[in-house]
Amino acid sequence: MPSRAVSTVTHPRTDPSALAGWSTDPAVRTAARLDRSGFDPGSIPDAVVAARSVDDVVELLTHAHATGTPVVVRGAGTGLSGGAVAGAGSVVLDLSGLDRIVEISPVDELAVVEAGVLTADLDAAAAAHGLRYAPDPASAAISTIGGNIATNAGGLRCAKYGVTREAVLGLDVVLADGRRVATGRRTVKGVAGYDLTGLFVGSEGTLGVVVGATVRLRPVPVATATLAAWFDDVTTAAAAAAAITAARLQPAVAELLDTTCLDAIAAAGGAASHGAAFLLVQTDGFGAAAEIDAVRAVVAPLASRVDLATDDAGSEALLATRRAGLPALERLGRVLVEDVAVPRSRLAEAVTAIAAISARSGIRIATMAHAADGNLHPILVLEPGRELDQQVWDVAGEVFATALRLGGTLTGEHGVGLLKRRWLRDELGDDLVDLQQRLRSVFDPRGVLNPGKAL
Amino acid sequence: MPSRAVSTVTHPRTDPSALAGWSTDPAVRTAARLDRSGFDPGSIPDAVVAARSVDDVVELLTHAHATGTPVVVRGAGTGLSGGAVAGAGSVVLDLSGLDRIVEISPVDELAVVEAGVLTADLDAAAAAHGLRYAPDPASAAISTIGGNIATNAGGLRCAKYGVTREAVLGLDVVLADGRRVATGRRTVKGVAGYDLTGLFVGSEGTLGVVVGATVRLRPVPVATATLAAWFDDVTTAAAAAAAITAARLQPAVAELLDTTCLDAIAAAGGAASHGAAFLLVQTDGFGAAAEIDAVRAVVAPLASRVDLATDDAGSEALLATRRAGLPALERLGRVLVEDVAVPRSRLAEAVTAIAAISARSGIRIATMAHAADGNLHPILVLEPGRELDQQVWDVAGEVFATALRLGGTLTGEHGVGLLKRRWLRDELGDDLVDLQQRLRSVFDPRGVLNPGKAL
Repeated sequence: MPSRAVSTVTHPRTDPSALAGWSTDPAVRTAARLDRSGFDPGSIPDAVVAARSVDDVVELLTHAHATGTPVVVRGAGTGLSGGAVAGAGSVVLDLSGLDRIVEISPVDELAVVEAGVLTADLDAAAAAHGLRYAPDPASAAISTIGGNIATNAGGLRCAKYGVTREAVLGLDVVLADGRRVATGRRTVKGVAGYDLTGLFVGSEGTLGVVVGATVRLRPVPVATATLAAWFDDVTTAAAAAAAITAARLQPAVAELLDTTCLDAIAAAGGAASHGAAFLLVQTDGFGAAAEIDAVRAVVAPLASRVDLATDDAGSEALLATRRAGLPALERLGRVLVEDVAVPRSRLAEAVTAIAAISARSGIRIATMAHAADGNLHPILVLEPGRELDQQVWDVAGEVFATALRLGGTLTGEHGVGLLKRRWLRDELGDDLVDLQQRLRSVFDPRGVLNPGKAL
Repeated sequence: MPSRAVSTVTHPRTDPSALAGWSTDPAVRTAARLDRSGFDPGSIPDAVVAARSVDDVVELLTHAHATGTPVVVRGAGTGLSGGAVAGAGSVVLDLSGLDRIVEISPVDELAVVEAGVLTADLDAAAAAHGLRYAPDPASAAISTIGGNIATNAGGLRCAKYGVTREAVLGLDVVLADGRRVATGRRTVKGVAGYDLTGLFVGSEGTLGVVVGATVRLRPVPVATATLAAWFDDVTTAAAAAAAITAARLQPAVAELLDTTCLDAIAAAGGAASHGAAFLLVQTDGFGAAAEIDAVRAVVAPLASRVDLATDDAGSEALLATRRAGLPALERLGRVLVEDVAVPRSRLAEAVTAIAAISARSGIRIATMAHAADGNLHPILVLEPGRELDQQVWDVAGEVFATALRLGGTLTGEHGVGLLKRRWLRDELGDDLVDLQQRLRSVFDPRGVLNPGKAL
């Protein structure tokens, strides 16, 4: 981390093409045009800079700011909303090489990392000290901390432990004009000045380039207990999730899978399904066993089958069903992974409405949900060979409209990127979008940071 | 809450002095000039508007924006940093009358409240559903939710449950020009657009007027266990707090009191002290009893005495010592409550350094700390009759410098207000302060919202 607010521009070159990481190789540029959203920009970026140091970032941005060159920041390219998609006229800034874990402080329960560190690598390094990085995005093995921060990524454990925002204490940021600043701090609390750290988190590369972060670590729970339940229909499974909340229980994980997911998992040779809907619940901490018993007491009357695991191997076996979901669906055809969230009380309605959209449109939609926080991933599974045509977008639009009608949001954890911009005003309204655009201009007056994305 | 981003300006009057809550009564204006920071502006505001509805707020701000009139928003006036202090030329907007708890949703585990609701009243209303408002500011009985939001208030349970920011899902805000917008949502997750909710939290009335909030509620723990330990010196007590962290335990509360506090409590007729420093630890949840046993195992070897309570009455008796601290100190003379935070690993150093400042200056400083998050409240206790003279500010400045030297912050949870502005650039640096000033101008181009505060 830099000393606070000290510019580190030293002897800036005027031409970033002299950087060691600069490439105009068509193969490199072609690979850097896509993320995992399924969106193809139809052209390739002019160049790719694989940053080897923060100085490279400073230099590129200084040049971009001076010349008005659009810069698209890229981590592992695992984004699902098109935030890292890059076409002609832009330069891709690839931060995946900034992958040092600079420090793990067991006493302060924090880590200082560069943006390109893989989330799972940080988690593994923390584990050596009995700690973990609590947000648990499903992409942890392949996504970077910088990407998690760009989208304010959620994950499986967020209802209890919070999303990325809650895990980030401070940021090392290169501003649009090349100045380097440090936001936040190493302390758990701190209210001096506006919360710029929180503002950068989730800003999808449009307010500055996050090159490093100080993140909070939490103790690995002393115990974990897992329950898997099957139900006759998804509405009953959603009712079971609501019953857990109503009993004032607080699981670390509560994952819901519908019939389409379960059938795909079985077809792919995964666990056989014991019902038409599946709910996986995990409790943790000193009271894990007692709390899972309380969960069982409220779930069992609604379920057709309940399995319990109280050791790690048993838990992992039950979790395997959840983890098998997306890969199994991807075997069936091209997928479009959506990411709406609704108030928990509307979860069953949302699931039912999405099933109706699927039936009406003829497009298969499988739904997985982080049930404890009302975050649904309706996954559109296209017939082999089918592209993302207008009907697919219309169906996605119906899903978004459903979420908004139920008091929810377009995106719980994946971000707006390119794919959801057209619906953003429906959620935020003109006043808030305009306010955010003016705010963006303060940070990036020349409009060089990921233009055309996020807002 | 308004529908999103819908302006509710209806037939704005041109003169807010026609509002029913408008007062120029000198007694009302005199009372509204102070908060609990001890700072006297030396004059009184021109008028006080006791808002009776959000429309009153819209109207006043529309007028203020048009005429460039400074507006100082006030809740219960319990702030400790001068954020609500108001002098000649300004109008005080008193929101304490907007005190409706609009909704408690047990299924969504949230509440919708107006800004003037007392924090303890919200907590009590939530308790009827087995829920609580988790941030537990020491001022809960007398401070408003709006004030908590303005300062991003912390409290006793923050290391485990987070500060105000983590409890706020969405806000109902009147912007500087009188437009009313809704930020955030009723969902636990949501990443559409920048995190304006987080930006308003802690902005001390400078970016908009928060008139209502949707806040998260959490289950009341099924069990709570409390341990009280006494030590031969405060360094050992701080070491015990560090040992709890090192053992990867996660108490809900960990409060440290030094000798000066303990002596004051005993002198005030409170609990007798059993040592020169005191540590109070509380665990909660299904594993509360098992976790407090683990705490005892690491604390006992360092302590001169350990008491344990596993029922509510016993816990409350032990907590009483902590709660008695500030009132006992206030009996000894005028107090100035500071609020620095340091990384947890530097807690003992901070306590020692503050004791040295006290010895050197001859000004009595008692220290209480939220030990689990490194947030210290050094309380300067002045001799009877002494004012906040230059030496007092110099000593406060030494305390701030110590916190910064140890990698900490000027303010963990009370805010910058008026009193800490002169040190803010020492912490943030010029680049960040300038960036924040430009950001402020986007929200309040005429500079009418709490001018001269926070930055």
